[in-house]
Amino acid sequence: MNGKMKAVVKHHRGYGAQIQTVEIPQINEDEVLIKVKATSICGTDVHIYKWDEWSESRVNPPYVFGHEFSGEVVEKGSKVKNVDYGDSVSAETHIVCGKCSQCLTGKAHICKYTKIIGVDTRGCFAEYVALPAANLWKNPKEMLYDVAAIQEPMGNAVHTVLSGDVIGKTVAIIGCGPIGLMAVGVAKAAGAAQVIALDINNYRLNLAKQMGATSVINSKNEEPLQAVKQLTNGDGVDVVCEMSGHPIAMNQGFRMVTNGGRVSILSLPVRPVELDVTNDIVFKGITVKGITGRKMFETWQQVSALLHSGQVNVKPIITHHFSLEEFEKGFELMIEGNCGKVVLYP
Amino acid sequence: MNGKMKAVVKHHRGYGAQIQTVEIPQINEDEVLIKVKATSICGTDVHIYKWDEWSESRVNPPYVFGHEFSGEVVEKGSKVKNVDYGDSVSAETHIVCGKCSQCLTGKAHICKYTKIIGVDTRGCFAEYVALPAANLWKNPKEMLYDVAAIQEPMGNAVHTVLSGDVIGKTVAIIGCGPIGLMAVGVAKAAGAAQVIALDINNYRLNLAKQMGATSVINSKNEEPLQAVKQLTNGDGVDVVCEMSGHPIAMNQGFRMVTNGGRVSILSLPVRPVELDVTNDIVFKGITVKGITGRKMFETWQQVSALLHSGQVNVKPIITHHFSLEEFEKGFELMIEGNCGKVVLYP
Amino acid sequence: MNGKMKAVVKHHRGYGAQIQTVEIPQINEDEVLIKVKATSICGTDVHIYKWDEWSESRVNPPYVFGHEFSGEVVEKGSKVKNVDYGDSVSAETHIVCGKCSQCLTGKAHICKYTKIIGVDTRGCFAEYVALPAANLWKNPKEMLYDVAAIQEPMGNAVHTVLSGDVIGKTVAIIGCGPIGLMAVGVAKAAGAAQVIALDINNYRLNLAKQMGATSVINSKNEEPLQAVKQLTNGDGVDVVCEMSGHPIAMNQGFRMVTNGGRVSILSLPVRPVELDVTNDIVFKGITVKGITGRKMFETWQQVSALLHSGQVNVKPIITHHFSLEEFEKGFELMIEGNCGKVVLYP
Amino acid sequence: MNGKMKAVVKHHRGYGAQIQTVEIPQINEDEVLIKVKATSICGTDVHIYKWDEWSESRVNPPYVFGHEFSGEVVEKGSKVKNVDYGDSVSAETHIVCGKCSQCLTGKAHICKYTKIIGVDTRGCFAEYVALPAANLWKNPKEMLYDVAAIQEPMGNAVHTVLSGDVIGKTVAIIGCGPIGLMAVGVAKAAGAAQVIALDINNYRLNLAKQMGATSVINSKNEEPLQAVKQLTNGDGVDVVCEMSGHPIAMNQGFRMVTNGGRVSILSLPVRPVELDVTNDIVFKGITVKGITGRKMFETWQQVSALLHSGQVNVKPIITHHFSLEEFEKGFELMIEGNCGKVVLYP
Repeated sequence: MNGKMKAVVKHHRGYGAQIQTVEIPQINEDEVLIKVKATSICGTDVHIYKWDEWSESRVNPPYVFGHEFSGEVVEKGSKVKNVDYGDSVSAETHIVCGKCSQCLTGKAHICKYTKIIGVDTRGCFAEYVALPAANLWKNPKEMLYDVAAIQEPMGNAVHTVLSGDVIGKTVAIIGCGPIGLMAVGVAKAAGAAQVIALDINNYRLNLAKQMGATSVINSKNEEPLQAVKQLTNGDGVDVVCEMSGHPIAMNQGFRMVTNGGRVSILSLPVRPVELDVTNDIVFKGITVKGITGRKMFETWQQVSALLHSGQVNVKPIITHHFSLEEFEKGFELMIEGNCGKVVLYP
Repeated sequence: MNGKMKAVVKHHRGYGAQIQTVEIPQINEDEVLIKVKATSICGTDVHIYKWDEWSESRVNPPYVFGHEFSGEVVEKGSKVKNVDYGDSVSAETHIVCGKCSQCLTGKAHICKYTKIIGVDTRGCFAEYVALPAANLWKNPKEMLYDVAAIQEPMGNAVHTVLSGDVIGKTVAIIGCGPIGLMAVGVAKAAGAAQVIALDINNYRLNLAKQMGATSVINSKNEEPLQAVKQLTNGDGVDVVCEMSGHPIAMNQGFRMVTNGGRVSILSLPVRPVELDVTNDIVFKGITVKGITGRKMFETWQQVSALLHSGQVNVKPIITHHFSLEEFEKGFELMIEGNCGKVVLYP
Repeated sequence: MNGKMKAVVKHHRGYGAQIQTVEIPQINEDEVLIKVKATSICGTDVHIYKWDEWSESRVNPPYVFGHEFSGEVVEKGSKVKNVDYGDSVSAETHIVCGKCSQCLTGKAHICKYTKIIGVDTRGCFAEYVALPAANLWKNPKEMLYDVAAIQEPMGNAVHTVLSGDVIGKTVAIIGCGPIGLMAVGVAKAAGAAQVIALDINNYRLNLAKQMGATSVINSKNEEPLQAVKQLTNGDGVDVVCEMSGHPIAMNQGFRMVTNGGRVSILSLPVRPVELDVTNDIVFKGITVKGITGRKMFETWQQVSALLHSGQVNVKPIITHHFSLEEFEKGFELMIEGNCGKVVLYP
Repeated sequence: MNGKMKAVVKHHRGYGAQIQTVEIPQINEDEVLIKVKATSICGTDVHIYKWDEWSESRVNPPYVFGHEFSGEVVEKGSKVKNVDYGDSVSAETHIVCGKCSQCLTGKAHICKYTKIIGVDTRGCFAEYVALPAANLWKNPKEMLYDVAAIQEPMGNAVHTVLSGDVIGKTVAIIGCGPIGLMAVGVAKAAGAAQVIALDINNYRLNLAKQMGATSVINSKNEEPLQAVKQLTNGDGVDVVCEMSGHPIAMNQGFRMVTNGGRVSILSLPVRPVELDVTNDIVFKGITVKGITGRKMFETWQQVSALLHSGQVNVKPIITHHFSLEEFEKGFELMIEGNCGKVVLYP
């Protein structure tokens, strides 16, 4: 397709972004052009918007950023067989090599040569996005576009929560940003007996309750270890999902997990963390899981099934809807923190 | 404790049973005496009541039968440490050797030297029951006695459904007796995207709906393989829980499971079953699990947590309540089939 | 590459095959042309050679058959990135759709739309073979061509044996054809405490000993259940690998496995098999695994590592070496049964 | 049994120990008296001998210490059923509560109320030891006493190495004390393709080679990360068994593991360790396992099977044999480090 389109462009190596009119991207034989119906803002996008140290080292403006979306297939390359015109699709954002040891053994999500859409390549904050067919995931026709757009981060939540057993167990979710909130819903749907949500922001703790948390703890107001002890007859929790990235909160997570429990870490602390390996890992005989990305495409199948069946309802998390042109309102809300997921419509 | 009590006694090698007045059992130093608060009728009890071939070969009347119950600890032997006076308890019905290879490696539920309470030893259809302390499971104070009584069969359902992954998957439950009905609720609580219940009794299929089945199929009225195909876009189901014991239904289960799926069998077909090993097991690459008893006590912990948290509500399944003296009404209902679980109160 | 080559052609719908001179196959942009260095005869090839009922229904002569090989890359399509000129390669023989639920979730080996090289497409009993790049597996430079050629069937053995725990366990291999013999070596390398090989052919039982079997049982001469009982203190074996396809041997396998054990079935019995589901599967609480193909490419990685490290030595199994022109000698040996693996050199 | 016996007694709150004549311990109805045939010195015993900070806080002299042994049953309490007079036995050293959530769900090795034989109770550096029958493990008659004595620490090695897949994988063992050396042998027996042993003591690295290490790295002499990279085509290892307790070595372990790999930690660093959670755990998607004790009794079954089958030969590790009276020689050797396992004979 030839022509122009609106897009949110990271235009310079500094704060902010701009709406610009750019060329509609061209596709090659293995790619697909998608008309973006809804796109949502990720924490990573906020890093790029604010232009922090990580962005400085990784990202090359000017380019269209954004990677969470849903849309409709409007053009496809000659070799594309997995999607059709008119299909509603979202996309896995890891572009992987397909040849390394990890890719060859069902662990492509930790391919050492991963490129990320919207970070290392052109993204989806635009009317159209061109993507490799291999990265697309077909959505059920009935799935709403805003819900379909947030499957990628929900995949992180699903991957984290389901990296071990949950049913009948007591689960703590530390950090209730959008992915933490989704994790609450996933843990509940997976049969957790208790889901304890921890954060220092009451707005988010309130959303956690709406997602099914059986208890919420504001760690600024009450001692979380003490509170968790009371909720668990002194035993501690079976599972911790660490989504805060804060070293103190992370250590609390390691302390509140019971012997033989699991700590799954999705967060990315900005510097090394001191852990009491002997007492909190070895003597307790726990399992620690590092979580990145989504299993391709087992996690996507789980996400789709949980949303489509109604086992998880993400509506309470999608708190704000703006037009693409209003992207700045969305970013400011994300920076401030009193929101769930912010969706933009091109 | 000395004295007499009412009990339902399998009094002779033939049909039926009798209410009799018998001695309250004496306990040894490792045992506990429990005042029975609620006791429920199992399919096994019906076999004994009707005196079929299996009973003839296994059971030695006269004796008190019954094995599903909840009650209160009223006396304990000198060496008993795991329960206290006044505790509400239920019991694992497998009495195991503790020395064999299976017992020593976390698989006591398949101990080769298992004795079963109420079958090989004196049971709980009585005002009091004496049991080894090692078999007791403590119930939360708030748990209702009728709910607590049916944890043992619910353990079978939990053990079957959770013998592999369920979340986001499509699950077929073949055979909707009480355990099948519980299995529907467990699959739903475990995050199944679809739970398809199959039976030939509409009363039970109606209960399946109340337990959360997303579809029910009366295999007398519609071709189950065709119906399942339609519900699953032609893919078949991910998980089959075989609880019918019928060779045709079992073969349908093997045919409806998708490649890479799982068939967990709890039922006990009365004679060998012809299976299409090549096409239904090998080429499909499926996993078949034989399920017996409950993991000690991992399954009990799951059952208790699912009930206590409200993740599974078994109230719809407990369809009938009688006094112990009315046991015959209960047995006749069970034989007829238009009931869920029947509870007796001593 | 243009030109002619020698190939073993299944030339008609009847017994036998012919050496013919045929065109060297052309490759497309996703394919690779390989100069075949060694190719081995599979049981499936023997079915096609003998022209049994299955071949009649599946195979379309005239075509070049054969699927086990190793060779050197001599030409590659424009889009091929995973192999280079001069690489030594073998190939996964399942050509899969890449789009179905199984393919998308790491279970491509049970893709419902699988085509098999040398059965549904042109094979490798030839000087050259053209194959999709996606099916190729790169061999270490040091690996001998005959060893590299038999990795595909060894993948079946590895997939079967390693479909559950083996270390410290007692493993029975029922059926000591080439894959059964490899299974003996794999079980030994995986730390099995005992490997009991069963067959009715002493030539093969002798090879089983060379592969590390700790005991061999000729089921024609001694009662296998009794013999296994004696070898296992009456407990039975932890793992059975069923590779005979014979209903009586399969039932013996189910009978000899201990409570909580595993029966992995690779064989393809020609008609339904009557199994004692109640006593041999349910009461024992065992796991049955249907095994087909090789996990892509986890199994290949395991096979390559086991061979390259010397943990498994397959030399004793490669009993015969012929030139491609002598293929008839190879097939006659395979039909007769007194051989391990037969390798042909084009 | 009444009478006196020789024993090595931790006699005071300071360095060293003494041979003394003490009463033979009396048993109760659940206990067994064992004539000690061989006993070996653990690193824990050395801590007690040297009287470090940990000993000061945990141990109450005077008492007989030591916990690794084999011996013969010479007396048993009235309720003991699992062993007989004359049986050769060793013992699990964790005395557990049997009632907590961990004990009830197959994780007794991480019971929160564990007492340790020879630390919290009277030990086995003596002619006789009295122990709970529940802790005993029966040895095959043919097993040599010195080999049988070191099963308890070998259980640590087995538990660590087998806390995930090993077959066909590349395994690094960091720290080649006796348990690390056993881990080398276990990894080899479990089918590891490469076993890389790291230490700074050449005596021990030499023993590692005898146990089957495919490469050894003296981390004082060569940069371990660089060396591992070369040995693994730049990929890093699949599995790290951390047995050094040193923070630098531990961090090297986290760095050398490949994406999706496993780090199992048995060591007990004396203070918190700074870990690069983001890069070494999360982005790599690895699994970290804290390992303590031995699974009861799955690990014991594995240990016994591996030794009895000859899959692991521990003879090279048992470097020194002394009479009980010569215990000081043994302790001095252990402190100095140029030894494998030291066995004492009462």
